[in-house]
Amino acid sequence: MSNQALSNISAPDFLTWAKTKQIHIEQVLEQTLPPADIAPQTLHSAMRYSALGGGKRIRALLCYAAAELCHTENHIADAGASAVELIHAYSLVHDDMPCMDDDDLRRGKPSCHKQYDDATALLVGDALQSLAFEVLSAPRLCKNASQQISMLNILAKAAGSTGMAGGQAIDLNAVGKALTQHELETMHKLKTGALIQAAVLLGAHGSNEQISAASAYAKNIGLAFQVIDDILDVEADTQTLGKTAGKDAGSNKPTYVTILGLAHAKDHANQLYEAAITALAPFGDEARRLRELASFIMRRSF
Amino acid sequence: MSNQALSNISAPDFLTWAKTKQIHIEQVLEQTLPPADIAPQTLHSAMRYSALGGGKRIRALLCYAAAELCHTENHIADAGASAVELIHAYSLVHDDMPCMDDDDLRRGKPSCHKQYDDATALLVGDALQSLAFEVLSAPRLCKNASQQISMLNILAKAAGSTGMAGGQAIDLNAVGKALTQHELETMHKLKTGALIQAAVLLGAHGSNEQISAASAYAKNIGLAFQVIDDILDVEADTQTLGKTAGKDAGSNKPTYVTILGLAHAKDHANQLYEAAITALAPFGDEARRLRELASFIMRRSF
Repeated sequence: MSNQALSNISAPDFLTWAKTKQIHIEQVLEQTLPPADIAPQTLHSAMRYSALGGGKRIRALLCYAAAELCHTENHIADAGASAVELIHAYSLVHDDMPCMDDDDLRRGKPSCHKQYDDATALLVGDALQSLAFEVLSAPRLCKNASQQISMLNILAKAAGSTGMAGGQAIDLNAVGKALTQHELETMHKLKTGALIQAAVLLGAHGSNEQISAASAYAKNIGLAFQVIDDILDVEADTQTLGKTAGKDAGSNKPTYVTILGLAHAKDHANQLYEAAITALAPFGDEARRLRELASFIMRRSF
Repeated sequence: MSNQALSNISAPDFLTWAKTKQIHIEQVLEQTLPPADIAPQTLHSAMRYSALGGGKRIRALLCYAAAELCHTENHIADAGASAVELIHAYSLVHDDMPCMDDDDLRRGKPSCHKQYDDATALLVGDALQSLAFEVLSAPRLCKNASQQISMLNILAKAAGSTGMAGGQAIDLNAVGKALTQHELETMHKLKTGALIQAAVLLGAHGSNEQISAASAYAKNIGLAFQVIDDILDVEADTQTLGKTAGKDAGSNKPTYVTILGLAHAKDHANQLYEAAITALAPFGDEARRLRELASFIMRRSF
């Protein structure tokens, strides 16, 4: 991790902020997800199992940090943050299924299809995606209805075939293939980057200028996030990750580490970090949380 | 089929209208779905394979018929019709997968996971759902942005855990169980009825009075549709259906036919039809297509 990355975290202040927001988004999701005693009970219980109680909530934190930069109203930031977390949760449930990554472990617990069954996991993912759009289409969420439609459109594009689902499809076809760094980057821009970018844009849905700067930040930090993920897959153990370590390397998937080597992958992550920070240059202290989050994302590994 | 049901179809006028709309929605979907030569090609090709070229497009027809009643602008009716057809197509792709109904045949062709593979089918369904919300969240679709948000909210609720996905979950748990008619009806109200109702409401997003009448019509015709489906499963052959006949009966699923018997199931369908027609009583000739569609849905079987 670069010195600059370290200097951007003014712990404990940032960690307190992050912890507060993590607890808050958990409460928001608690309220948003249908109660487990409402029919169909198994589906609702499995949706709550999959979307609550875990993860660093990086996407929600990015949304809240962007919301602070743009003075977005709290309830709109909550809707944006929960919508991206619901989409993320759905993608994990489907990604863990036997026909995809076939992973038994997620956030230190049995993955949804292991705890329930494949059919339930399929429906859980489907229903979590619908719920994300239900949250963002709540009547009178924004005073400016056009702005609300724009949020919905950002999320739909980020989730779809030229966003997250498209990235997953490229990933499927990449197994066992020798990708160039450019091809790998295209895949991750869609697979992980699109939703991370959406998280920032939903939080920053204020002025155009802010959206443009936030977008450049989000693009770079989204890619850095994936590079770090690939490094973690090699360096961390299963307990720390809360998911099976060495999975990508073992399944012959191209990663930043296999393409660039560990040392260059770390250099590349640092470059992306620097570019993300540079994009925030026009802003003063109001972009502090976004800077700190960039450092936080980097600090996950080294 | 009752005499009244027959008298409501003034063929060939209705059939010409229906055919025109079927061709039209196919063209709209052709334009809406990403081209197969845009990356990720396999995913886009599989999405087009699953959403184009088949089906009676009952949901689109209901949307267009409701749009005529409420003088909804054409491009809004197109968006509503394609959004419900995309959600319907996604549900069929996921429903056919091995962990669900495990059906190899759909609309007379190999189902998506047979033509491609399970992982692709999973992503096709996911991306078709996102695309439905992308279509409805197009910038400036409606002059009244609040109305557009209301359409998005109707679709999200109809697709989610207390709509279509919820109905699928109840269906999963119902296999091998003795359901009452009321329980069966609750299941189908969610599984099939919610999206059929959404199709009508998206078309009829005009005045509140019209939405309320259209909603009662849609509720009844949605259930009638399912009763007919259960009758067809027993009476029709695989070729006529374009999907595996006798599937529900064979898999020990409760149906209207197993609960009520064939004759009473037909009576029940007729009662639901009459109730749907009655709900349209306040309207004159402008509700003609909705009446004709009700007859068309009834005529599918007997």
